[in-house]
Amino acid sequence: MLVSKDELDTWQDRRRAHFINCLSGYKSANLLGTQDKTGQTNLAIVSSVVHLGANPALVGLVIRPHSVSRHSLENLLETKCYTLNQVHRGIIEQAHQTSARYDKQQSEFKEVNLTPLYTRFAAPYVAESRCRLGVQLQSTQTLVNGTEFVIGEIQEVYIEDEAAVAEDGFVDLARLNTACVTGLDSYHEGPAGLRYTYAKPDKKPLPLPTT
Amino acid sequence: MLVSKDELDTWQDRRRAHFINCLSGYKSANLLGTQDKTGQTNLAIVSSVVHLGANPALVGLVIRPHSVSRHSLENLLETKCYTLNQVHRGIIEQAHQTSARYDKQQSEFKEVNLTPLYTRFAAPYVAESRCRLGVQLQSTQTLVNGTEFVIGEIQEVYIEDEAAVAEDGFVDLARLNTACVTGLDSYHEGPAGLRYTYAKPDKKPLPLPTT
Repeated sequence: MLVSKDELDTWQDRRRAHFINCLSGYKSANLLGTQDKTGQTNLAIVSSVVHLGANPALVGLVIRPHSVSRHSLENLLETKCYTLNQVHRGIIEQAHQTSARYDKQQSEFKEVNLTPLYTRFAAPYVAESRCRLGVQLQSTQTLVNGTEFVIGEIQEVYIEDEAAVAEDGFVDLARLNTACVTGLDSYHEGPAGLRYTYAKPDKKPLPLPTT
Repeated sequence: MLVSKDELDTWQDRRRAHFINCLSGYKSANLLGTQDKTGQTNLAIVSSVVHLGANPALVGLVIRPHSVSRHSLENLLETKCYTLNQVHRGIIEQAHQTSARYDKQQSEFKEVNLTPLYTRFAAPYVAESRCRLGVQLQSTQTLVNGTEFVIGEIQEVYIEDEAAVAEDGFVDLARLNTACVTGLDSYHEGPAGLRYTYAKPDKKPLPLPTT
């Protein structure tokens, strides 16, 4: 099946959105926790978190204009911090439900029945998540179509099951039942992975044990 | 297990890199195909492709400085086009091997034994990939640490198995055996997903059939 740009232009909007959203492949599933200065909390599922660097530990995130995550963007610009909470198989339905268009004065925590948890941040974690990051806003920049790219530095990491972290730092997400997303509405629990040795030009990669 | 930024700073570089690379969750696995003006081809695995918009159909991609994908960046700036080819379970080893530091005059296609395929682009597709995008460069911008964000518009899409595309545009990546990545070296074949109805504030999401 070969689809050209010209043909895509003739597709009905919703069909094209579904199709294009699937083409980049599997996406991470994280809940973005924020609150405004008055303490009004917000929770939004995001599928665009990307690794930007390990030292300092930087993560990037795309927020689309007029999307349901616009309240999250307002909040994190106000408080300069946010949390990223991995979605696992036990909270997929609640996580998906945060993508509904709730009013700003409604908290998705309450509406979808997830528990806000606080440490030293002016942003709530999701208590049910098994891998949680506390992130300090570093900068934002506008990409295209008003899309905002949000860059932050990881300040603290919580992982529920210490045994999921290997000696060399690798985190076994399958052990945490972390989920991933394809397209707009499909959730997958990632199966155990196969690790390979560091790639060198003159060597064939060999399988490594996971944890 | 709770790890603070201060504690992370004391970790050995390689361990911290493994750890931080895992925290964003599952990542897409794509092979970035490019060539320079003389036709010298290059192939690099990338795990940072993100959806930016459906109309126009835009994809973003992070290229880290001094990484093995630096030749790809030079090439796509030169020719203004590139291909993105989803990795599936049958080509995981070859895909991982493209991350080795080959010289610019060595083509990863030849070194890892994947087949370049041409249509109307000045960039090679991977013939073995089951979902391939031809992309025209739109812009690049520098993020942090010299990291480049590359934005392109999808010009054509090839999907091997037409039955993987549902009536509503959803593409069943499990049917294409598309793989995903965690951390630096772990590859997962995504299992069949569970689709949910469009989230509305006053309704519980319901499961949808996949394809």
